[in-house]
This record gives sequence, structure tokens and C-alpha cells, in this order.
Amino acid sequence: MAEHHVVIIGAGFAGLSAAKSLKSAPVKVTIIDKQNHHLFQPLLYQVATAALSAPDIAAPIRKVLRKQKNATVLLADVEDIDRETKCVKHSKGSIAYDTLIVAAGAANSYFGHDEWRKFAPGLKELSDAFEIRERVLKAYENAELVTDENERTEYLTFVVIGGGPTGVEMAGALKEIATRTMRSNFRNFDPKSARVVLIEGSDRVLGAFPAELSKSAQKQLEDLGVEVVLNTMVKDIDATSVTTSDGHLIKAKTVVWAAGVGGAPLAKKLGVELDRSGRVPVRPDFSLEEAPEIFVIGDLAKATSKDGEEVPALAPAATQAGAHVAEQIVRRLEGKEPEAFQYLDKGMMATIGRSRAVALSGPLKLSGWLAWMAWLFIHLIFLVDFRNRMAVLFEWAWAYVTFQRSARIIVQSDSKSAVKT
Amino acid sequence: MAEHHVVIIGAGFAGLSAAKSLKSAPVKVTIIDKQNHHLFQPLLYQVATAALSAPDIAAPIRKVLRKQKNATVLLADVEDIDRETKCVKHSKGSIAYDTLIVAAGAANSYFGHDEWRKFAPGLKELSDAFEIRERVLKAYENAELVTDENERTEYLTFVVIGGGPTGVEMAGALKEIATRTMRSNFRNFDPKSARVVLIEGSDRVLGAFPAELSKSAQKQLEDLGVEVVLNTMVKDIDATSVTTSDGHLIKAKTVVWAAGVGGAPLAKKLGVELDRSGRVPVRPDFSLEEAPEIFVIGDLAKATSKDGEEVPALAPAATQAGAHVAEQIVRRLEGKEPEAFQYLDKGMMATIGRSRAVALSGPLKLSGWLAWMAWLFIHLIFLVDFRNRMAVLFEWAWAYVTFQRSARIIVQSDSKSAVKT
Repeated sequence: MAEHHVVIIGAGFAGLSAAKSLKSAPVKVTIIDKQNHHLFQPLLYQVATAALSAPDIAAPIRKVLRKQKNATVLLADVEDIDRETKCVKHSKGSIAYDTLIVAAGAANSYFGHDEWRKFAPGLKELSDAFEIRERVLKAYENAELVTDENERTEYLTFVVIGGGPTGVEMAGALKEIATRTMRSNFRNFDPKSARVVLIEGSDRVLGAFPAELSKSAQKQLEDLGVEVVLNTMVKDIDATSVTTSDGHLIKAKTVVWAAGVGGAPLAKKLGVELDRSGRVPVRPDFSLEEAPEIFVIGDLAKATSKDGEEVPALAPAATQAGAHVAEQIVRRLEGKEPEAFQYLDKGMMATIGRSRAVALSGPLKLSGWLAWMAWLFIHLIFLVDFRNRMAVLFEWAWAYVTFQRSARIIVQSDSKSAVKT
Repeated sequence: MAEHHVVIIGAGFAGLSAAKSLKSAPVKVTIIDKQNHHLFQPLLYQVATAALSAPDIAAPIRKVLRKQKNATVLLADVEDIDRETKCVKHSKGSIAYDTLIVAAGAANSYFGHDEWRKFAPGLKELSDAFEIRERVLKAYENAELVTDENERTEYLTFVVIGGGPTGVEMAGALKEIATRTMRSNFRNFDPKSARVVLIEGSDRVLGAFPAELSKSAQKQLEDLGVEVVLNTMVKDIDATSVTTSDGHLIKAKTVVWAAGVGGAPLAKKLGVELDRSGRVPVRPDFSLEEAPEIFVIGDLAKATSKDGEEVPALAPAATQAGAHVAEQIVRRLEGKEPEAFQYLDKGMMATIGRSRAVALSGPLKLSGWLAWMAWLFIHLIFLVDFRNRMAVLFEWAWAYVTFQRSARIIVQSDSKSAVKT
């Protein structure tokens, strides 16, 4: 009898964790991703703000799993999931599964305004980070080049939409680019004059954190010079401006979207009812009611822990879910009962600029420099690849000492030189 | 009276050297480049073969020149040079000059077969390196995915056209990816089975080196497993094969062009007669016969040293030319006579794989490991940015110890996911 074949779609935190946890299980594992690398998303904003280079935070999946004999890695775009024949269809063929783990993650959601996507890129993949980095660097380049003062101001105004961790981290980094990185680099204007505006719909930034840490984060942002606008939604975005719900028009050529995520489009192929943001509701062990041989984990799943709390869309939760599901698969092969998942909340953190942060762990609330040291430490530990840890440690040490950003590169080619304004 | 304005087009070795050499001159300097970074081209093949990341070998021009008060840096595409009005026209306006230095460099030449460009990318800019890297990494990914053996063999055959330093370095690196980097990474085939073929039109590789070093380089390549094909031109290239002048058809999906360079297209805007490869003939001090206020240096110039030898298209020659021209500009302002250029040939080197090379300096000919140490040392010294030196030193040390390549990243986005085969 052929070995039990587990197919995993997605090699993010959830999928990769599931694959690694099946290392000693009596199964064959095939993991498929449309990218060739596992991305350490918490640090993606640093690639977007030219502080790190892409290979620092991305590890080739097949390199990570090369020593795991029961694991095969495939680079492919999954196009369909056939529950009837238990087959995954991809761009170059199809793969049969006994158990399927769908860990395809989240995608940016523009609240029904998909036309905003081209004006305000989100931050989910490396290509997003390059897009944002290029727009930011080019905004300064164009500011040096143009002579019209109004146009210059538009180039030197940066808007970040969404006050969660991604938005807060982007806004802090963007302001630091203005006040530190670009110091002395320009002759026709003072980079310190660049404006960074962070727009948040609710009454505080970092809504998932306790109120006092939200307040601390806002203060640290404002100390840096970021303008924080609360209780405000965005009504429209175009190539040169953002219009807010209270009618204000902000002239800005660089806008970053950090306001909404929904389930990846692949979820629709499962043929089950999705929740409002496109996520897949699952049972306590992450399996599907309609098809128990299919598990959904990570940002794509809408799951609840044993204690009744919703499982958050965070890296540690995804990692724990991956391990849990691997365990359930083994239990099934041994004829045992399934176990409900319980998320172990070890805390969360968000960084603000080069040396500030807020961090929460149980009853412990940290703010400022100490939180930042903790943040550095935790992120270094969790980088999946040892080489990445050394590289990022080097980059951060260098940046800290020199105030420089190491990856201020715009890549253009003659053939596809789209002069973005 | 306004300060003498020197405009420099191009911030490669020649242009940047000229700008820096004018640091204390009584002139205003504006340097324009269509990229925002200075590229250390000798190491570009290492980005193409995933050993280094782009920011390791590229430094933002305005960061390099930020402390030079008389220098302004502009990111712009130069569209025209108006000799009448002494104006440089770019995408967002125009700049008047008193002296113009054109250092726009070389461009890939396909010997009249521009249609080959899309099948066989060259290696002049970062975007070329990313293109090649992506094709190479994807070739292995596709080889793992497909089931047809013939198709797999096409994916696992790599052809490099041109046996100069670029071709030799690429071929060596490509073979090492097969034999070392990808070890254990695949389940459906053995990466060591990948073929690398180097095609050279003349009777030896590294034609600019002495015959014994050419022979040594060829032997080292063949020891690595590269197939070296001499005395052979290419008759045709398409999406899945290369046809040679003696009628052989090599089925290969990944082809790299390292066979021909000509002057950058901008040369035509000077309105002077160009040589056969599109380069600009200049006087002994690099100025134009037809317009003495214009200098042309670097790969774009066809120049002869005082000793009658043609100035080679090499980084050290470009750097020396930049300094020479800066000196001539100052001499003119002081009413002195021009001086003819003399290239100081300190030698050249080419690396073959991870620990072999050939090097030549005067009468000194090195081969193998010693040449490679010298190569490492020289390249590290000449990296323009100290941070780059540290980063590259780290990458090489890591790669040497672990046999790994640090930048095995393919960047794809959903919106522009062109599945290249």
C-alpha cells in the first residue's frame, strides 16, 4: 500500500511548520508554493524601506527542507482543488492527495475598491516591498529633479493607510528615511521636510494591543514626526492624492495600503462557505466540516481555540497551528481521536523607528528601548535560516551604528522603464 | 560670473571617478544617471548566480557623493544632447553645461540579431542579473515539476555564449550551482546532471589574456565539468535551443549572452561619427575633435594611450580616465595645455568557480587558488562603499564555509506572473 500522501499548499509560517512537523511521520509530504522562498513577513516592511535586502528575510523552501527525506518541494501556481478526485491542479499538472493542508495565507483587501490597488500597494510579498521601496526612493529623486514647488511637495508627502502593526512600522520607517537616511543627500530641498501621514479608521493605533501601549505607540510616532490621524476612513485614492471621510484632500504621490487583509482567492476553490473576509471556517482541529481530509491553517483559517478565543492572524499562531495539524494527521493514522487546538499567546510587538517599540507578553507591557531590544531578539531567533540571522544581525548592527539603510536600490531596466510619478 | 558647470552623464566607474576627482575644483558638478546606484559590474555575475544580493554590489550614487558639496546627483533618463545650446535634455527638463563628460558606458550587442535578446539576456545591469537568476532558479524548479524526460533535460541544459571574463565566470558559477548549491534539494532528478556549455567564437577563452592563462582557465573550467566549445559561432537562438555555426542544435531553455558589447545608444546623440561597435573616437585627452568642451570616457570611448595601445574597456581604465579628465578641466581653467592619457595597466583577472582563477599583472601570471585570493582581495578593495565591502566579505566567507549561495530568491508577483519556460 502506498504511503499516505500529505499535500501542503503554501510554505509560509503555517505550511512550513506543518511540513517540518511531519518529518518523522509515516507519510510522504509534498509542499507547493507559488514562490520559491519562505518569507519572514514581519520584516517585510524593512525591505520596503530599504533597510534589508530580500535574501536577508527569505529562505529558499527547498533549501530549508533539503535534509527532510520525506518532503518534496514544488514551485507551482495551484489553480484548483478537486475534492471529488482528491486532486490539486497546478499550472503544469496535478497531484493526488490523501490529506490536504491549505495554508495559502491572506491577501490585501481594498474593501471593494480594487481600483485603489495600483495607487496604493499593500505589503504581502517581496514584489510589494520592491514596489514600495522603488516608489519611495523615486519620490525623493523626483523631488530633487522637479522645479515646481507644489509638485515637489506632492513627492515629499507619504501616506500610510491603516494603523495596525504594519502601518505603524511603515510610517515610523518612512519618517526616519526623511530625517536620517537622506541627510545631506539632496541639494534642492531639505529631506527633513517630507511629511508622513498615518490614517487609522478606529480611535487608536495598534487596536489589538492594550490601550496604554496604543497611546505609547502614538506618542513615539509623533515624537518621530509622523502625523497620526485617527477616526478617519479613506474615501478615495488616485495617482496624486488621498481623500478622507471627513472631506480632506491630501496631495501625495506615495501611498501605502496597510488597512485590510482577507483570505487568499484560492479559498473559493474549496467549495465551502467563507466568512465575510474570505476566510475558511474550520473545526476545532482545523479540519473542514464538509471534507475532514482537508485542513486549513494560518491566515486563511477562521478558527477558535479551546478557550473560546479566535485564533489571531499572527506568525506564532500559524506556526503552532501547523504543528497541531501534523499531530492530528499522525493521530488519525494511529486510530486516535482528534484534539482541539489551543493557541499559546506568548505576546506581540510592534517597532517604531530605529530604536523604539511596544511589546506585550502576558501581564508584561514594555515600551521604548527595552521593548525594541526584545523585538530584535525575538525576531532574530525566529528567522528560519541561520544565515538569515547572521545577515540581519549584521545589517541591523551596521544601520544602528551608521544610521544608514543598506538596500537603497532602485532596479530599472531600459525595456521596462516605467517612469512612475 | 557663475561657476563653471560640469555635467557628467553616467555614474559608473568613469563618471563617478570624474565627479570625485572634481571635489576640490572651482566648478559645480551635476552627475546624471538613469539608475540611482553605482554598480560594481565585475561582481554582477554573482548576483546573476544567486551568490550575492543586489545591495551588496550597488551603492546609491547620492549617498557616495553626499559629502561633496559641489556635487548634485540627478536620477533621469538623458534623451538628447544639444551641442548648439550646450544643453542636456532629460525626461523632466534640461540642464545647461559648460563642460560635458559623457560616460554612458556600453550596451549588449547581438551582432545584428536583436531578436535574440529576449531568449538570451546579457549581463550589464541589475535587472539583467535578476532576469538570469530567475531563469536559472526556475529551470531547476521546472525540472522538478515536469514528468517528460526530454523537457527535463532542456531545463537542465545551460548555454553561455562568449568566452571572455563574463562568460567564463558565469559558466563556472552555473556549473557549481548544479554540483554544490542544489545538492539534496531535489527528489525527482540529480542536479549534478545539469549541463553547462560555454561557446566561444575564437580559438581560446579569455582572448585578452596570455595563451598559457587561457589554457589554464579552460582546464579549470573542464575540471569543474563545463563543456568548452571553441572556434564556434552561434547561428540562431530561440526559446528552447541554440544552433551553432557547424550545424549543431543544443536543446536548452536557459541561455546567457556574454559575447558582444557596443557603445550605449546615447552615443548617437553626439552627432559625431562612431566606430563599428558604436563607440566614440576621442583625442588623446578624451575630448571630442568636433566639440572640445565635450569629453567621452569609459566603455563608450574609443581612445588610445600615449604609448599607442588602445585603452581597454576595463574598470581600472575607466577610473583612471575619469581622474584624467577631471585634471584636464582644471588645467583648462588655469589656462594650461592639455595632457595625453596613459593607461597604467596593473593587470587583470577572471575567476572560475568558488576557488580558482587566473590573474595577470605585468610579468606575473597566477593560476588556481593563489590567483583567486588575489582576485578576492582586489575586488574587496575596489568596492566603492565600505559597507559593501563588509557585506560581500561576509557573504563570501559564509559561502566558502557552507558551500551555500545566499541569494536564491525568485521574486514573482501575482499581477505580473509571467511563467517563463
